[in-house]
Parts: sequence; structure tokens; C-alpha cells
Amino acid sequence: MTTNGRYRVIIENVQPIVDNGLHPAKRTIGERVDVTAAIFSDGHDHIRAAVMYKKGKEGKWTEVAMKHTSNDEWIASFYLNEKGEYFFTLQAWVDHFETWHDGFIKKSEAKLDLKVELLEGVVILKKLSKNNPELISVTRKLEEAKYAQAIDLVKDENFSALVRANPLKEIVTEHGAEYSIIVEPVKANFSAWYEFFPRSASLEPGKHGTFKDCQRLLPRIASMGFDVIYFPPIHPIGKIHRKGKNNNVRATSEEPGSPWAIGSDEGGHKSLLQALGSLDDFKRLIAEAKKLNIDIAMDIAFQCAPDHPYVKAHPEWFMQRPDGSIQYAENPPKKYQDIYPFNFESENWESLWEELKSVFLYWVDQGVKIFRVDNPHTKPIPFWEWVIAEVKKKDPDVIFLSEAFTRPKIMASLAKIGFTQSYTYFTWRVTKSELITYMDELITSPSRNYFRPNFWPTTPDILPYHLQYKGENSFILRFALAATLSSNYGVYGAAYEFYENKPITDKEEFVDSEKYEIRHYDWKRTNRMTDIMTMINKARKENKALQSTWNIQFCTIENSNLIAYLKCTDDLSNIILTVVNLDPDSSQSGYVQLPKVKLKLSDKINVKLTDLITEENYTWAQEWNFVEVNPNKMPFHLFKLTVQESNM
Amino acid sequence: MTTNGRYRVIIENVQPIVDNGLHPAKRTIGERVDVTAAIFSDGHDHIRAAVMYKKGKEGKWTEVAMKHTSNDEWIASFYLNEKGEYFFTLQAWVDHFETWHDGFIKKSEAKLDLKVELLEGVVILKKLSKNNPELISVTRKLEEAKYAQAIDLVKDENFSALVRANPLKEIVTEHGAEYSIIVEPVKANFSAWYEFFPRSASLEPGKHGTFKDCQRLLPRIASMGFDVIYFPPIHPIGKIHRKGKNNNVRATSEEPGSPWAIGSDEGGHKSLLQALGSLDDFKRLIAEAKKLNIDIAMDIAFQCAPDHPYVKAHPEWFMQRPDGSIQYAENPPKKYQDIYPFNFESENWESLWEELKSVFLYWVDQGVKIFRVDNPHTKPIPFWEWVIAEVKKKDPDVIFLSEAFTRPKIMASLAKIGFTQSYTYFTWRVTKSELITYMDELITSPSRNYFRPNFWPTTPDILPYHLQYKGENSFILRFALAATLSSNYGVYGAAYEFYENKPITDKEEFVDSEKYEIRHYDWKRTNRMTDIMTMINKARKENKALQSTWNIQFCTIENSNLIAYLKCTDDLSNIILTVVNLDPDSSQSGYVQLPKVKLKLSDKINVKLTDLITEENYTWAQEWNFVEVNPNKMPFHLFKLTVQESNM
Repeated sequence: MTTNGRYRVIIENVQPIVDNGLHPAKRTIGERVDVTAAIFSDGHDHIRAAVMYKKGKEGKWTEVAMKHTSNDEWIASFYLNEKGEYFFTLQAWVDHFETWHDGFIKKSEAKLDLKVELLEGVVILKKLSKNNPELISVTRKLEEAKYAQAIDLVKDENFSALVRANPLKEIVTEHGAEYSIIVEPVKANFSAWYEFFPRSASLEPGKHGTFKDCQRLLPRIASMGFDVIYFPPIHPIGKIHRKGKNNNVRATSEEPGSPWAIGSDEGGHKSLLQALGSLDDFKRLIAEAKKLNIDIAMDIAFQCAPDHPYVKAHPEWFMQRPDGSIQYAENPPKKYQDIYPFNFESENWESLWEELKSVFLYWVDQGVKIFRVDNPHTKPIPFWEWVIAEVKKKDPDVIFLSEAFTRPKIMASLAKIGFTQSYTYFTWRVTKSELITYMDELITSPSRNYFRPNFWPTTPDILPYHLQYKGENSFILRFALAATLSSNYGVYGAAYEFYENKPITDKEEFVDSEKYEIRHYDWKRTNRMTDIMTMINKARKENKALQSTWNIQFCTIENSNLIAYLKCTDDLSNIILTVVNLDPDSSQSGYVQLPKVKLKLSDKINVKLTDLITEENYTWAQEWNFVEVNPNKMPFHLFKLTVQESNM
Repeated sequence: MTTNGRYRVIIENVQPIVDNGLHPAKRTIGERVDVTAAIFSDGHDHIRAAVMYKKGKEGKWTEVAMKHTSNDEWIASFYLNEKGEYFFTLQAWVDHFETWHDGFIKKSEAKLDLKVELLEGVVILKKLSKNNPELISVTRKLEEAKYAQAIDLVKDENFSALVRANPLKEIVTEHGAEYSIIVEPVKANFSAWYEFFPRSASLEPGKHGTFKDCQRLLPRIASMGFDVIYFPPIHPIGKIHRKGKNNNVRATSEEPGSPWAIGSDEGGHKSLLQALGSLDDFKRLIAEAKKLNIDIAMDIAFQCAPDHPYVKAHPEWFMQRPDGSIQYAENPPKKYQDIYPFNFESENWESLWEELKSVFLYWVDQGVKIFRVDNPHTKPIPFWEWVIAEVKKKDPDVIFLSEAFTRPKIMASLAKIGFTQSYTYFTWRVTKSELITYMDELITSPSRNYFRPNFWPTTPDILPYHLQYKGENSFILRFALAATLSSNYGVYGAAYEFYENKPITDKEEFVDSEKYEIRHYDWKRTNRMTDIMTMINKARKENKALQSTWNIQFCTIENSNLIAYLKCTDDLSNIILTVVNLDPDSSQSGYVQLPKVKLKLSDKINVKLTDLITEENYTWAQEWNFVEVNPNKMPFHLFKLTVQESNM
């Protein structure tokens, strides 16, 4: 027989939890969490429920009353204002005080005799008085009052408030399990990434860029409002089987190779390519960037060129073939002879794991706080789970971006086990319905609790078909979507700014890819895109509503070329309405519907709008409002809304 | 660091499990179980997976290979042929043999050099030979063959078969958790219930029926094909506050009272109402019914009339009010003074639980194997979980039907914690879309693994609006739906057979309800409904496809009054197509689409149909076929389909 058979309330389907508590749910500082559960009891008695939460294992529990929404679903919300691990659990109980009070009111309305009910009320109040001496006087009053007065006392609104304020916890269902929520730095959820190859940073054509050149670009990128600069690998590049321009299998001796073919006689994952500069140069760059509130994100690509020092020092970390050679990467019949993958099935996996962990820790020591991890889906998921946890033991603020453009469940799994942010399918979601469906999936599916999207219109690896040979309007509208749909987004820097749009025929790849050669950009030049990036990043910084991905609500607009969405802070103090024209060529117009319930609008609507890009002002007095977007003027509107007080 | 960091395959989202393994999934003897999971690894290597299952904790594991369906979802199916508890778990691994073989074929097609690959093949085969000596000769052959021959050997279909047959389990991901499936008797999933009040069983008008009268009705009910007879409570009926006709608060001394007001000076839950006969009479009835393959289902209503012996003997099991009275049932402002509920919050809950358990065990000892539990949702769910498990320790075959017409999550919870079958919302699902939506919910939601529906068109408590004042066609079509949609169904016996259709005004209750008075039925009479019940029950017994609820597939038919659904056995040896006309008044027709994929039909369709009710025969040679249902002839078709061999 169970130890306590008296409890009657059942608690099921608690959220947010990830894989039944196997992994923590994720939030960032200042975010709200909505704890929900199915809670019910036998019979007609009233029940109450509470969420208990605490910061850290040793923290003190805070109790938040839950509210019934519908169909036995309950909710309690609270804000997570500190970094670190929170824990929560639930309690629920039959509340005989509330049950008694509700029955009393109904019986009194039906004019039933209430003598015994009054006696019962006194019994309950005496119980409650033990913990709340303030109730002693009410109890005495009820006890001493004459019948009619006593009934009036209980029917009084003050008495209802007293019932609400004094839960009678007698036989409590403790949910038992404690679930954890990991609260990460704000940047985990709100970041604007600018990617460039340091070797292309020189202002002088034909010269190999250096960290010092990068440092000179900092003011430009900071003034555009980006807060993460991400570099492809900056380690020594393999010389054996080095790839040439356009992935040619033979490089000339002049060609720089792909930065992802890591390691040579110059060193490996803890070394820097000498042509870029010294470790001191790199550390100075990190420090200078930090002053501008920019983090330098480093690429971690755990693979080796054939001349990487590991290959000689630790042949046991690679797959040996029966002919004595080392297995290069392949996807039959394709061969990648310039890359040796690690063999994570090695019997010496422990030393391999330790060494790879030490790579992260080494760069953390140099000041790197953000890692963009290359192809994590080609290394074992259990390894990432371990190494991310290890690095976070040293510095819990480190951010890991998963570059896993792969199948949905693998992307999800990497996010579950610890990656802070993830590349997404946004790159290929183009039509209005594709975009809405994808956002809905991100926001409302269980992945909301662990998968933080980072939207990229292009990357050095991907020039999607819909941007090939396209003009600036297309690039601008995709940028606006990335930066306003998702609070984390990134661009393949100058290539995007200057509309690089030429693919290898029939492929979603850039021709003359910067991956295999040094590019010269005119870093002094700015254009329409530069301005728009600057203005949108400014709007993102000044408007808290744009600092979350989770608060999006799409608005109805009867034009399949126009997509409109609202983002608000919980308190409605900041409201942004974005309308993007998905047609880069023609002006499109339509009526957009304001979400009245969400905005708490009365029938008398009075909403002021300011376009944060054009600074034009409008007043809307109706639920449905005409919007026109002329892409040649600006492919989108970014409206800040002010709901006039009379409506609230 | 984890103890084994070499495994690379991840297993997630295993099904069927209930609340992450908190409760067993349910099946019945002979049912198939489809174990599914998301299974994936890093990289491009081939993976394999297997389900391991065993009967009983001490059983030997059987391994079933899983197959990939799509999007990293895997499945393995097997049949559960024995009663009792099964356990299953999963394994998955990177299969280097399969990876090697697949790469070999692709490289050979690309005419790459395969010398090293051949050496690798020999290494793998040698590993496998340790466990499978039959591979030694193949290994030697490959080792000794010349290059071209060796390649041909590997490319041969026999070699592919060898690869498939020889999984190379090197570093296995063991899922770890073992989940249980409880396999119950066939009757848990396939039963036809006939409910009647024993006191109405007399053939002589005005006489109180007896168990002996019930015994005389057995051949009638058996010939109609029912296999469960369910009696409302047969215990002594309270005399204090006894209810009269139509729930009158004052009964005359002649009135029999409601059987659900249990207990009087004659005894309580372990006694029988003397007017019905002796315990021996009851046991004889059970035995005689058993000979006809009928179980007698007993009603368990855990509540007491004020004169129940428990009230005096165990006042601590009831709620005492401050004035010394015992709390009667109420739903303020309604009072039910004839009923004392048990107080499950009693400090003496343990003795109460033990006593209630002993009630079940007492009747199990008398031969009762099926209990219909009255209002389980007004007693604590933890109590039911315990008492059902306790009763099953004594006899695992006992079936519990939950009469919880209440909110969805409570109904679901009762099913999860052990009730074998449940009453459902079918009673109120009337239109085609309501019926399809409801069936889809039952079949495809997680509840499929624990909630076994039992469909009732009416009960003594419920005469739904859509049957009030309705004629025989309405009763027939609802009967046909109940008995063919769900493999478990029941009818409120003679009242349904003879179309009792008069409600209390504005309520879904019978006027002059049999709950409060003795009814006289002309048990010798039969009618069109009697015949249809007989024929449908016969069809259910003779056609395995109708013995499951889980195999339903709705067919498209462009008429909202016609609903069509197919049920098949897994091997398609038995196929039943039911078409019901939801319009009781008019003939309806339309074209029904045969599910070609499900029935494995080629383009040359040749399907023979026999209507199991009218015995008419048809041949269908097309995907879309005309059907007409004239309710005045028969409100439904029950077709048995035979797919002619040429199509298969």
C-alpha cells in the first residue's frame, strides 16, 4: 500500500520540460517562463495548485499560485532574472476552504439553512489561524455573530478575498520531480552576427589580411550595430592535398587553401595562421572588439589536414586502414583527401575528448566567449553533450552555435544536449506560408524549450537559389526577415552587403568562393544595404520587442506577397509591427488586421505608428488598415506602435 | 566523463509508452505492437536498430530488427500472443559492415580502386566469423580471390543478403529503460454488453424479478450474440431517504428504490438484495451464463445509503459534520440525502481501502470477472490504481469498465492507471465529422495505448437528445455504429431493443426511469432490432476484422449523410466495409472510394462484396463505387470484401 493514500489531486504533463527532464529547458535572463500542467481531482471539490521554484540547488523555494485556464490546464508564470540553473516543481491540493465558501454562497442563494455550514467555517478558520494569527479575529467574529450577520460576513467581498489569500493546504500532492531551467546570458537569445574571413580584411588589394586589419574594421561593423563578429577558422592551413580556387583538388603554391583544412607544420587547433598575426594581435583584437560590445566568435572545426601535428602525435585518434594509411573523409564515391576526420570510436576516445576539450578551454583563456561549431552533426552527439558541459563548468557564459544544416531530429538533438543557438532552415523558407509554418513550428513545438534559432540568409557555403542573380531588393527583404523574425541572426558580411549573387551552375554555392581564395572588399564603401543593416540593428537595440523570437504573432493580411507580424513586450510597453513585401519587384498593398485581443484594443481604436526606417507617421483608427510596400522605396515597413491611452 | 563515450547512435521518443513509462501500455492477446523511435547518428554511416522484448521479468529476450520508415523514424512490429506483462527495450548501432558494403558498391560503380576496401572487408568478415563460423569460407574466398573476382563476389546479391543477415554490433547504444506492455484477455478489447435490471427480469407483469428469472433470459441473450450481461447493483437498497418513481424524494413503502443507494439492515456491498434470490442463485446464474460464454458483469458503486451497515460500524470512513451528522452527497445547492459518500481523506483510509478491496475480492471469489465501476471519477484516482492492481494480483483476467462520463483528462487518467475499458463520448457524437474526429482521436492520440473505448448508444442514465422521440431507424443506425466502430460496445438491453425514447423534458434522461421502479418487458417478443443485433453480433464473431477498434480506416464518400469505414486484419484475410446512413428517414447514395494502398489493389480492381445482413452480392471493378443505403430497408451495409487473386 502506498505511504499516503489520502491525496486526491493528480498532476500530469508538466511543461516546460525536455525529454521528460533528461535535459534542462532553456531561457535567457529576463525571460518569462510559463509553467503549465494538467491538474485535476476526483469529484466536485475545488482544487488549487502552485509552482515552487528556486535558483540553484540550494536556493529557497518561491511559491507562485497557478491559475486554471481551461479543460483542467493550469498555468503559472514568472520571470528568470538571474543567470544559472533554476529548479521548479508543483504542488496541488483539494482546498476545502474554497470548496466550503463556494458551496456556502450557492446554498445561501438557494436560501438553504446554513447553520452547520457556519460551524464548518469556524472549524476551517481555526485551522488556518494556526499559521495566520490575523484570522483569529475573523474567526471570533464569525463564531459570535448572529445567524443573519454571520451569513452576511461570509458573503462579503472581504471574506472572498480572505479565502483567496488563505489556501488551506491539508493533503498536498507533491509532484515529486524537480525540473531544471538553465538561464543563459541575454546574448544567447539576442545577437546580430557579422561573418568575415580575416584574410580578406586588408584594405589593400592583393594583400593577406591580418588581425590588425580586422581591428581597423571594428568601428565600421560596430557602427552598423552588430555585436558578434564570426571568423572562419584562423588556424594554420594544411599544405598536403590543399584545395585551390573553386575547390580544385590541386592548389598552386600561392593559393591559401581552405581554412577548414586545419593544421600544418605551423601547428594545429591551438595555433594561429602566422599570416594573420600573433596571439597577442588576436587578443588585442578581442579586447578592442569587447570595448565596442562585440564578441569575436571562433570557428571550431574538429577535423585535421593530413599534416596536422595530431596525425603524427596521435595516430590512434584516426581510423587506420589495413594498408597502413589513414582514412580520409569520404561520402562515397566522393573523397575529401585534404581532411582526416577524428575516429570517435577510437579505443583512446578519452584522451581525444580531453584534448578537444582543451582546445575550447585554451581559446576561452584567450578571451573567446562564442564558438560557432562546424558540422557538429558529423561528430558524436554524446561528445558534444560532455564537452559543452565541461566548458560551461569553466565559464557558464560561453555560447555555442551549432552549424548543423541537417535532418530535423539531429538538429534538435544537438540543441537539446547543450548548443546555445542553431542554424536553421530559414535559409530555404521563402514564401509567406513557408515562413509562417516554420515560425509556428519553432515557437509552438516542444523545441521552443531548447532550440534557439539563428537566421542566416546566406553563408559562405550556401547561396540559396532564390538569391542567385537577384538584386538588392531581394537581399534587403531577406535581411529584414532574418533580423525581425528571429532575435538571433547573422549575415555573411560584406558578401551580403555587396550583394554577391553568382552561383556555381545548378548548385547553391558561390562561384569563386571565398572559402578557397582571398577576397578583396572595398571596406570603405557603404550602400543602401549598409544603411538598412544599421537602421534595423538600431531598431533591434532600442526596441525590446525585437529582442525575442518567442513573442511573434502573425497578422492577417490578404495578399500572399505581404507578410506582417507583431512583436510585443509582455506589458505592451513596446510594440513593433513588421510588414515585408516578399515581391522584390512590384509594389504590393493590402489590409492588415490588428490583433485586438493581444493589444487589448477597445472598439475605439487609436494607434499611432512610426516607421522606424523612414520616420513617417500614421494613425490607425480601425481594426483593418491599408498598407502599401513599394520595394523600390523600401521592401518593408518596421512600425513602432503606440496605443493611445483612451483605448487601454 | 561518461563510462563509454564511443557510442554514437541516439534513441529518442520511444513508443508505445504511457507517461514516460509510469504506466504500462495496453494490448490484448494476439494484438500487434508497433514499437517506434527516432534513431540517428552523427555522420553518414549506416545504422541499424533492434527491439528486444521478453515475456515477464524473467523471460528471454527476443530481438526484432527495426526498419527505417522516414525522417529518422524506425519501426519494428511483433505480436503479443500470451497474457501478462511484456517488456521491451531498444538497441542501435553504427553498422560498419553495411556502411562498408554500401560504400563499396558506390565506389565500384564509380570505378574507383578498391584494393584497400577489399582488405577492409576481410577484416570485418573475420570479426563476424567469430560468432558465425559459416562466414569463414566466404572470408577465405574473398581473401584468396583475384581482384576482379573479389569485386564480383562483393557485388553479388548473395553477398548483400549476407550483409543484411549479419549485423555487426560493435559499439551498441542500449536504450537502457525497459518499458512494459500489459497483455490482457481478448475480451478486454472485444465484447458485446447487454445491460438489464434483474428486478425487471420477470416474465410476469408486476412481479419483482429474480436471479432465477435472469437465468431464464440467458438463452435469449446468448442467441442474440452478447457475451457480457451487466447488472446494475444487486445489493440491499437503502430504506432511509429512499427515492421514489422519477427520483421523487419520498418513496412509498411499495417502491423498490434506486439500486445505487446501497446498503440497509439486509446488508451492504457483500450482500445481495433478498428479493433477487440467494447467493447460490446468483452463483448458479453466473455458472449457467458461463456455459453460454457470457460473463455477468457486476456494478461496483462505492457509496452508502444512510442505513448501510458501514455507517454504524465505521463512522470514521465518512465525513462527520460539526453537528454530529454525516455529510451526505451534494453538488451545491443540490443535495443527495440518500447517499453517503466515503471520505477518502479519512485518517483511517487504509482500513477503508482494505475493506473496499475485499468487496472486489469477495465477488471475484463468487465467480464475477467483470466489474462496471460506477462514477469512478468521484473517488480518488490513487485508490483505483491501487485496488485494480491488488485485484489483478489475485486474478489478472478481471476486467474493469470505467463509468466516468466526465472531463477528458480524468477519463484518460482512470484508463492509464488501470481501468480495462471506458465509457466514451460516442453517446454524443452524431454527425459524420464528429464521428470521424472522435475515432481519429481515439485511434491516433497517445490514449490509443491505454484507453479502450466501449461505445454505448444509451444507458439508464442517458437518453441523448438525438434519440429522443426517435424511431427504430435511428436506434438501428446508432446500434450499427456502436457495434462496428468499436470492438467493445454495449446496449441498455430491452429498453434499447424496444426503442424506449421518452425523456424528461429538456433533459437527456428517461422519464419513468427504470432506476427508480421495476419495469416489465415482454421478454418473449423480438423485433427488427433483435434480429439486427443478432446478425451484427454474429458478423462480429465470424469476422476478425470487427474484433478490433484500432484497425479502422475511413473511406471517402461524398455525402455527409453516409459514413464508410474499412476494417481489415493485418494479413488482409478478412476485410469488412461498413456504410451507415446517418439519415434515418431518406435513402442516401454516393460513391465510396476503396483505399487501394491499404488493400494492395492493382489498377485492375476486382473485389467481391457480400452484405452480411442482406446476403446480397456485388462485384466492384473500380476505385470509386456507387452505394445506396435505404434506411427503411436497412440503415447500413455491412460488406465482407474478397479481393480476387488477380489483383494481389
